[in-house]
Amino acid sequence: MRTVDLILRKRRGEELSVEEIQFLVNGYTTGEIPDYQMSAFLMATFFSGMTDRELSALTECMMNSGEVLTLSEIPGTKVDKHSTGGVGDKTSLICAPIAAAAGVVVPMVSGRGLGHTGGTLDKLESIPGFRTDLTLDQFRAQLASLGLCFIGQTDEIAPADKRLYALRDVTGTVESIPLIASSIMSKKLAEGIGALVLDVKVGNGAFMKKQVEARKLAQAMVGIGRRLDIRVQALITDMNQPLGFAIGNALEVMEVSQTLQKSGPADLTRLSLELAARMIHLGKKADSLDDARKIAEDKLMDGSAYAKFKAVVEAQGGNSQALDRFDLLPNATGMREIVTPRAGFVSAIMAEDIGRASQMMGAGRARKEDPIDPAVGVILEVKVGEKVDAGSVLCRLYYTAEEGLEEAAELVEDAFRISGARPEERELILEVVS
Amino acid sequence: MRTVDLILRKRRGEELSVEEIQFLVNGYTTGEIPDYQMSAFLMATFFSGMTDRELSALTECMMNSGEVLTLSEIPGTKVDKHSTGGVGDKTSLICAPIAAAAGVVVPMVSGRGLGHTGGTLDKLESIPGFRTDLTLDQFRAQLASLGLCFIGQTDEIAPADKRLYALRDVTGTVESIPLIASSIMSKKLAEGIGALVLDVKVGNGAFMKKQVEARKLAQAMVGIGRRLDIRVQALITDMNQPLGFAIGNALEVMEVSQTLQKSGPADLTRLSLELAARMIHLGKKADSLDDARKIAEDKLMDGSAYAKFKAVVEAQGGNSQALDRFDLLPNATGMREIVTPRAGFVSAIMAEDIGRASQMMGAGRARKEDPIDPAVGVILEVKVGEKVDAGSVLCRLYYTAEEGLEEAAELVEDAFRISGARPEERELILEVVS
Repeated sequence: MRTVDLILRKRRGEELSVEEIQFLVNGYTTGEIPDYQMSAFLMATFFSGMTDRELSALTECMMNSGEVLTLSEIPGTKVDKHSTGGVGDKTSLICAPIAAAAGVVVPMVSGRGLGHTGGTLDKLESIPGFRTDLTLDQFRAQLASLGLCFIGQTDEIAPADKRLYALRDVTGTVESIPLIASSIMSKKLAEGIGALVLDVKVGNGAFMKKQVEARKLAQAMVGIGRRLDIRVQALITDMNQPLGFAIGNALEVMEVSQTLQKSGPADLTRLSLELAARMIHLGKKADSLDDARKIAEDKLMDGSAYAKFKAVVEAQGGNSQALDRFDLLPNATGMREIVTPRAGFVSAIMAEDIGRASQMMGAGRARKEDPIDPAVGVILEVKVGEKVDAGSVLCRLYYTAEEGLEEAAELVEDAFRISGARPEERELILEVVS
Repeated sequence: MRTVDLILRKRRGEELSVEEIQFLVNGYTTGEIPDYQMSAFLMATFFSGMTDRELSALTECMMNSGEVLTLSEIPGTKVDKHSTGGVGDKTSLICAPIAAAAGVVVPMVSGRGLGHTGGTLDKLESIPGFRTDLTLDQFRAQLASLGLCFIGQTDEIAPADKRLYALRDVTGTVESIPLIASSIMSKKLAEGIGALVLDVKVGNGAFMKKQVEARKLAQAMVGIGRRLDIRVQALITDMNQPLGFAIGNALEVMEVSQTLQKSGPADLTRLSLELAARMIHLGKKADSLDDARKIAEDKLMDGSAYAKFKAVVEAQGGNSQALDRFDLLPNATGMREIVTPRAGFVSAIMAEDIGRASQMMGAGRARKEDPIDPAVGVILEVKVGEKVDAGSVLCRLYYTAEEGLEEAAELVEDAFRISGARPEERELILEVVS
């Protein structure tokens, strides 16, 4: 088997066999296949796509390139949730405690923020003392005791995906549905889960700008799950404005705390409850989705989800008092209001620009090795559809340094579109793929 | 400027600016852009193509990556000829002496054989003593004195193309019309020529299998020439059977000698004359193409082309007596006849298979660094359209070692298609692009 022949066949749109996909992934992982051949293969894949069989083979190979957890000693169906990334998207910190409070075991392996989107680990680490670098034994023990644990992707999980992703990042081959789907699924399947709820974001603040593309990605991931016997459901949800009001790590943790105490934003609460309900249903803690929705709401309303989150924060070394006393969280030193020069209706809030502005102020990373500032970010004062007067505050920027502030402020100002007519209402949950 | 952004733009089908193409080629040549980014760019180019402006910029950049010869001290228009490669294609050794005998200055920079196609340098080196590794000063001096010199591509000419070609070879990105066209033209334009005649082969023994593809390649190269002020004409010619009867280095030199002595195969003679006529016309040694055709024929018939070839062989250290006494050329030690089991008409001779069989016996290389055996090869006894009886000899294999012989014999046997009906006659020169 010669690598160049496999590249040629992919270029011509032919289907590779399972053995051929294995040859490529294993050869690349061991270093026998050089970067320059793999990047040509990735670009050919971008153009030629992959069949379902190839997609499953690629996912399994990447999954099996490292450690595959077995959590069978912990009873019950293990259910994780994954989002393709948005702005202000802190649903994991809400739906996971709700599901865990309902008895679902949630082994949550999360990522860090990169570019304009935030990361669950960064948000959690803004809580003083919170540690995400647990050993796998600690992870297992906490799952057994609390039913929920947050950790980062370890080097042992899907190393082939790690190498491939780094290569895709510098060779213009990120935006390929089979490559995205296999990357996400290989990591998730290596966690030893029995079911997965996906939140595929679509809109100006998401990776996928069009619903048809988001649907293809969702279908690809649900298909991989089906062929590997993991139940997967995907919600396709709107990301044409930030989710909730808060963008930025500590600011988002504050909003999570409010939401778990029943005073969060409507959109964030609604989506978190729906994701939790799907986790509860797939986790077999309810016979029907409607029952699961009721359970999710109960666990939010009776405070048990909040109590679960606090227990998890404590177990992972964090100061859970910070969830009630926000002065214990990192706080910004400066604040700037962004006002609208004219009256009208907010017709759009370009979420990517808000995310980028937040990143510029220090909340996010341009490169993986960059440090972040947990205190800074943006709090929206209005959402799409609201009426504003001239001079109304649209949002507030929270900063700790002047660097990048002007540019961020301009970006945020331009991110709000004000129009004379009331915009049509948009659905938050656009469709379900399962 | 970031390389990954240029890859992305090419992937999306956008046009890159001249500066951006320069950034890529120069960055790759200096090693600042790594192989893995360039191979992704090449694969994106395979799928997205290139505009005329990009194509010219790429060609010029590669040309300017090394030495660009000026031959202005030698009077007259310098005209070269290039073939995209076929089986049994020894026209360069015939048309160049004809054109030179007519007064055209022919600086012929040739290549070596790779895969199933042969190379002009390998053929010439089968003449005892013949040297192709002249210095540029020796090259210039011989052009001034004889009007014809054969050398190989030096390391100084278009080094960017050399690096890119090596990368394309292992990343499945060879078969791209803009990449092929710019590769050929960058080398040819660096030779200091004023005009170029191209022989674009099409058919089962050629790189291009379809006439529409060959036409696109021809148009791309003619277009590059026009934009860079070099007159380029391309013949698209049939390669659905080997050209002439001989395949293999010394065997082809024998056929060249016969052809220059007016007893060569009809197809080889005809095509060589047409190529020579085009060189004479572009070299301004005739007012019309018809006049040029007459001059070419005269130079062949009066023996001056043969005399020119002998003088060049002597000047480059070769023993020109070997052209009259074939026992002085490398000779095979064994011969095997391939016969047809049934009567009929020869409807096809798969040229690529004949070329590969010849390569297997040692006439060609699988890898650049492989040695070759100048003596071995194939001599056809029949051509397409001829009637054969059962038991007739189709061709003879000339070999020096048993290794690979059986496999080669089988391949050659299968290369001949015998049918009951006389096949339609095929044109040799299919079209002219200028």
